[in-house]
Amino acid sequence: MDRAGIHCLIALFPLTEYIRKLVRIIFRNSRNYFIMPDQLSKRIFAELESLVLIDPHTHINPHSAASTTLADIMGYHYYTELAHSAGLPQEQIEEPGLDPKEKVGRLVKQLGDLDNTIQLSWLLDICCEFFGFEEEAITESNWEKLYDTAAEKMAQPDWEQQVLKQSGLEQVFLTNDFDDPLEGFDTNLYIPCLRTDDLVFHLGKQETRERLAKATNVDVGCAHTLRDAIAKLFDHFTSRGARACAISLPPDFSPTAVMPEEAEATVRSLYAGNELSCDESKLVSQYVFWTLAEYCAAHSLPFDLMIGVNRRVYEAGVYQGQDLYDKRTSLIQYKELFNAFPNVTFPVSVLTSTSNQELVSYSWIFPNVVINGHWWYSNTPAFITFDCKSRLEAVPKTKQIGYYSDMYKLEFALPKFRMYRRVLANVLASDFVIGRNWSEERAIELGKLVLRGNVETIFGR
Amino acid sequence: MDRAGIHCLIALFPLTEYIRKLVRIIFRNSRNYFIMPDQLSKRIFAELESLVLIDPHTHINPHSAASTTLADIMGYHYYTELAHSAGLPQEQIEEPGLDPKEKVGRLVKQLGDLDNTIQLSWLLDICCEFFGFEEEAITESNWEKLYDTAAEKMAQPDWEQQVLKQSGLEQVFLTNDFDDPLEGFDTNLYIPCLRTDDLVFHLGKQETRERLAKATNVDVGCAHTLRDAIAKLFDHFTSRGARACAISLPPDFSPTAVMPEEAEATVRSLYAGNELSCDESKLVSQYVFWTLAEYCAAHSLPFDLMIGVNRRVYEAGVYQGQDLYDKRTSLIQYKELFNAFPNVTFPVSVLTSTSNQELVSYSWIFPNVVINGHWWYSNTPAFITFDCKSRLEAVPKTKQIGYYSDMYKLEFALPKFRMYRRVLANVLASDFVIGRNWSEERAIELGKLVLRGNVETIFGR
Amino acid sequence: MDRAGIHCLIALFPLTEYIRKLVRIIFRNSRNYFIMPDQLSKRIFAELESLVLIDPHTHINPHSAASTTLADIMGYHYYTELAHSAGLPQEQIEEPGLDPKEKVGRLVKQLGDLDNTIQLSWLLDICCEFFGFEEEAITESNWEKLYDTAAEKMAQPDWEQQVLKQSGLEQVFLTNDFDDPLEGFDTNLYIPCLRTDDLVFHLGKQETRERLAKATNVDVGCAHTLRDAIAKLFDHFTSRGARACAISLPPDFSPTAVMPEEAEATVRSLYAGNELSCDESKLVSQYVFWTLAEYCAAHSLPFDLMIGVNRRVYEAGVYQGQDLYDKRTSLIQYKELFNAFPNVTFPVSVLTSTSNQELVSYSWIFPNVVINGHWWYSNTPAFITFDCKSRLEAVPKTKQIGYYSDMYKLEFALPKFRMYRRVLANVLASDFVIGRNWSEERAIELGKLVLRGNVETIFGR
Repeated sequence: MDRAGIHCLIALFPLTEYIRKLVRIIFRNSRNYFIMPDQLSKRIFAELESLVLIDPHTHINPHSAASTTLADIMGYHYYTELAHSAGLPQEQIEEPGLDPKEKVGRLVKQLGDLDNTIQLSWLLDICCEFFGFEEEAITESNWEKLYDTAAEKMAQPDWEQQVLKQSGLEQVFLTNDFDDPLEGFDTNLYIPCLRTDDLVFHLGKQETRERLAKATNVDVGCAHTLRDAIAKLFDHFTSRGARACAISLPPDFSPTAVMPEEAEATVRSLYAGNELSCDESKLVSQYVFWTLAEYCAAHSLPFDLMIGVNRRVYEAGVYQGQDLYDKRTSLIQYKELFNAFPNVTFPVSVLTSTSNQELVSYSWIFPNVVINGHWWYSNTPAFITFDCKSRLEAVPKTKQIGYYSDMYKLEFALPKFRMYRRVLANVLASDFVIGRNWSEERAIELGKLVLRGNVETIFGR
Repeated sequence: MDRAGIHCLIALFPLTEYIRKLVRIIFRNSRNYFIMPDQLSKRIFAELESLVLIDPHTHINPHSAASTTLADIMGYHYYTELAHSAGLPQEQIEEPGLDPKEKVGRLVKQLGDLDNTIQLSWLLDICCEFFGFEEEAITESNWEKLYDTAAEKMAQPDWEQQVLKQSGLEQVFLTNDFDDPLEGFDTNLYIPCLRTDDLVFHLGKQETRERLAKATNVDVGCAHTLRDAIAKLFDHFTSRGARACAISLPPDFSPTAVMPEEAEATVRSLYAGNELSCDESKLVSQYVFWTLAEYCAAHSLPFDLMIGVNRRVYEAGVYQGQDLYDKRTSLIQYKELFNAFPNVTFPVSVLTSTSNQELVSYSWIFPNVVINGHWWYSNTPAFITFDCKSRLEAVPKTKQIGYYSDMYKLEFALPKFRMYRRVLANVLASDFVIGRNWSEERAIELGKLVLRGNVETIFGR
Repeated sequence: MDRAGIHCLIALFPLTEYIRKLVRIIFRNSRNYFIMPDQLSKRIFAELESLVLIDPHTHINPHSAASTTLADIMGYHYYTELAHSAGLPQEQIEEPGLDPKEKVGRLVKQLGDLDNTIQLSWLLDICCEFFGFEEEAITESNWEKLYDTAAEKMAQPDWEQQVLKQSGLEQVFLTNDFDDPLEGFDTNLYIPCLRTDDLVFHLGKQETRERLAKATNVDVGCAHTLRDAIAKLFDHFTSRGARACAISLPPDFSPTAVMPEEAEATVRSLYAGNELSCDESKLVSQYVFWTLAEYCAAHSLPFDLMIGVNRRVYEAGVYQGQDLYDKRTSLIQYKELFNAFPNVTFPVSVLTSTSNQELVSYSWIFPNVVINGHWWYSNTPAFITFDCKSRLEAVPKTKQIGYYSDMYKLEFALPKFRMYRRVLANVLASDFVIGRNWSEERAIELGKLVLRGNVETIFGR
């Protein structure tokens, strides 16, 4: 019974003025009293939705940030891997030379099996918000029209700007390869971040070493020259406005201090072209990782740790749909690191909700550990809700980065942040306004802080 | 204030017709508006309750499927172990030759300490639904009458059919020993499933080897003849309509490919009567397990994995009340298996809610991994609720088997499925109809799919 | 629209008596119908709040139980560690010789960053309840007045009694060092408990051995005399009314039976002044621990196990703000212990919510394992709610100790128990009265049992 409904009701019956007033009062009071939680949450959500954001972690290619066809959107690994998991053969999804429209057509056939997933709801949200699609599902009978409408919109010269504006995005953090020249784009809009997985875990590959040499012009051959090359990367990235160093780490990784002299023989052996043993590879990883932390300290650069992923667990999976994990991991593995670098801020993401309490506790104790978003397999409402509740009630509010989109294409910021803002609004309404008697305004301020304020402070440099 | 209440209200007061209408409209509107969640959930629950089911995992003895006295029901390990845990000595519960009625009388004395548990609510539900018991608790003053009423009902010749009908059960999957002749019962009603714990973990026992020899007529002596014997079991079971191979696994089990030649010497040693070392036993287990998976592939038989139980942790416990677990287990241990058998469907149950997110993620990625029910220590509403939410929102809807009863006696399907259906209705109401704006009908369809449709598809053969 | 509101409404409009009645009925009905959850929860909470309690685990110093200044309260590690984590340097918090008022002033500067935390809400609750503080936050502009008001109240000679009465505390369990003389306080109010961390984990320190010698007058030199000394401690503590032996344990501890003869050589070596190896230290720890369990059995003393804490993970942290954990721990490590001592009651606390399901399952199976409170990093509403739900629905109600305050100063019992009672009331309302159709009275009885009744029974001796 909305306001229109009550007016209609009043008009229908020729009651005395007293009774009209009575009805209005009953309605108004019951509105405040009974439906507060739901209405309250919606009001908070509306406030959070109006906030313009900085997205602190994405995989956007700044040279091609927005999509050009629906295949760019539906090619996101969430859809290809779920469609594959539901029965679509990998060869159909990743057939070499496949036409984008044909690819979308093939994926659409499987979407019915995924229509329960929150991931698919992002897709519908995108289609509705950006392309005016208003049907309940993308089906074999309506997808072509949608595809064409989308293609037309995306062909507009200012499409990228439209998406940024409609999504309320002010800045977008990138994930740049260490040898990215960082040229040809606006680094005030697209903020460089130095991604270091290759350096730490793939220096054993000839290709990685060649890329490093090319990027730095350093003739690496020993632990010290390796260190020099890394120094050059930091110089380059920070000179181009980088705001973070970042890495994703397997569940069994445990950083430890390795000094150049300890790594010397092994690095030399590697650069002499020898195949390294498991232990030797690990030593090089540890050395490079520790060196990165040292340069983060030197440059006051936050070091994003994304902890817990095992790569290529399902090798027959689709592109980017092969990674899983072992939940038996602990932040205690990072004890030495967190103690050794008190001046480096570590925004930490964990892959599973079973690691969330550790993240809450470690950031509650360590000044240099801050909580960073809801990552990948934990990025669905049930996990976000529980994790968000436990974080907001126990960790200093200034040490929590609420969310990042992790997107590959700009169109995903809107539905992903919206999902998060909806959960956040519910938690603020139930746990703070109702549960702890906060004013609505105060709850909204807390929401805005974790959504944006802390991103500015923590990555502010 | 239900509909009857509002009529009563209207009758009580001689109001003008206008006011009567007004009251009706206020009521109807507030009904739709204010109490939607609760009423909605009840309507969805009613729809789910009306669905006739296939129970995809039980321990029913098809030759004695229903109970004959209340002792059969209260002898379920949930009650004996909880009564024991609350203080009833094991000797009193399991006294040799104990009269069934006396056993029930002894257990009843302890029930007061368990009346908070959901497990006890199943018992009360059974007594209410099947025996017309209407009191709040089973006590020392009312149990005898209940016992006698139950005995009378259970003595009716069609009791088994009554229970099946009242419970809405169309088919019931069994858990058959590998040497079960599978004769003397209707395999269209009671579906055979090959349970393989003994083969994988107890082949070291003389008794198991003798049972295998007797069941297959194969003179096993080496890895190849062991394989032949297993082949015969699959032939026998599939010829009798088996729909699954099943096994429960300890937390530290990690399947790996073991070829006959690798197992040869050890199997020969075992059959020569030698005691195996720990490592040798493990090798045999791995070999048998891998062979089972190969025959599942050959026969297109789903392989139910129930992961995480340690047997006999509390050896002084009551029968079937001795098993616990080590939560430090991971589905990464099954990486090799899931990759090696893309054509075998693995319905996976996990013992703890801390493994639930792994199950969600692995079934989201691996086409051959599907989610199976809420097992044992995770089969209570708090865990089911959280696990159910996270599954329904992230995994293709066709890859989720909502629930199985795991029952030993037919009477338990009704209360256990009802508990699950209640949780499912709540989740569908809150997360889908309210949270994602689905129609009620669509939410109900999703509920029916995970309750029944997927059981048909996944175990359809 | 509360009762006052409805009266006001009725008074405002000169309606006929019929309409007045109608409004009352609509209001009353809708009250029962629509707002039941919230009102119900509040009624249950009010009942639980009225209960006088025994607090079964605290760190109260009985010679100085209440605070003397606000610095005693704000010096609680929850505030110093959170303020430190949010940016306040450790040197400012723990400057030697720091004046209490100055300390509070420094902490207040950081409180704004913590105002979202439940921990800070305890502080505000204390200030409101005990000192009449009514503002929303403690700020740089209002803290001095608060400090002075508090100091004045605390200076009253009966302050301790006031706090006990206002908090509804009848008895308070202590955590006494093994060499505590247990003299000079009322052991009927402040109940001694033998804390044994030092004996088990720090016997390698000269100081601990000297304290043991002094406390027992036993000239320890071998495993047997060590055992004799421990026997004396138990005699002393039980003669002074001790109700529990208690210990906190690291995640990797796994008790095992070590007999005197096995420990003999190592204990002799230790007492000869030799430095022990890691393995030798572990053997001594195991021996002492097992001996403690034996004396608990001999004296029918419950043995509180607080499982999962790693000490000094963050060594640069503030006092008591340095401990964290490794979630990779399991109650399976206690299998041997729980089996070996069927007559010792083990009230078990776990540090993380990821261990909660194990605790539920182990206490569901083992008669001698009971659930004990919500400890430390799990002592915030999100974790308590989930843990409380899963416990109340699956474990015999007589085996659950709902809560203990873990406080260092008396003033904390009130806000901490209130937080728990609020969660408990919500769970009883939603899961029992609404979810399972219990009467309010029955739900309240269950609440009182876990809040107080079980404390009396389990620690009753």
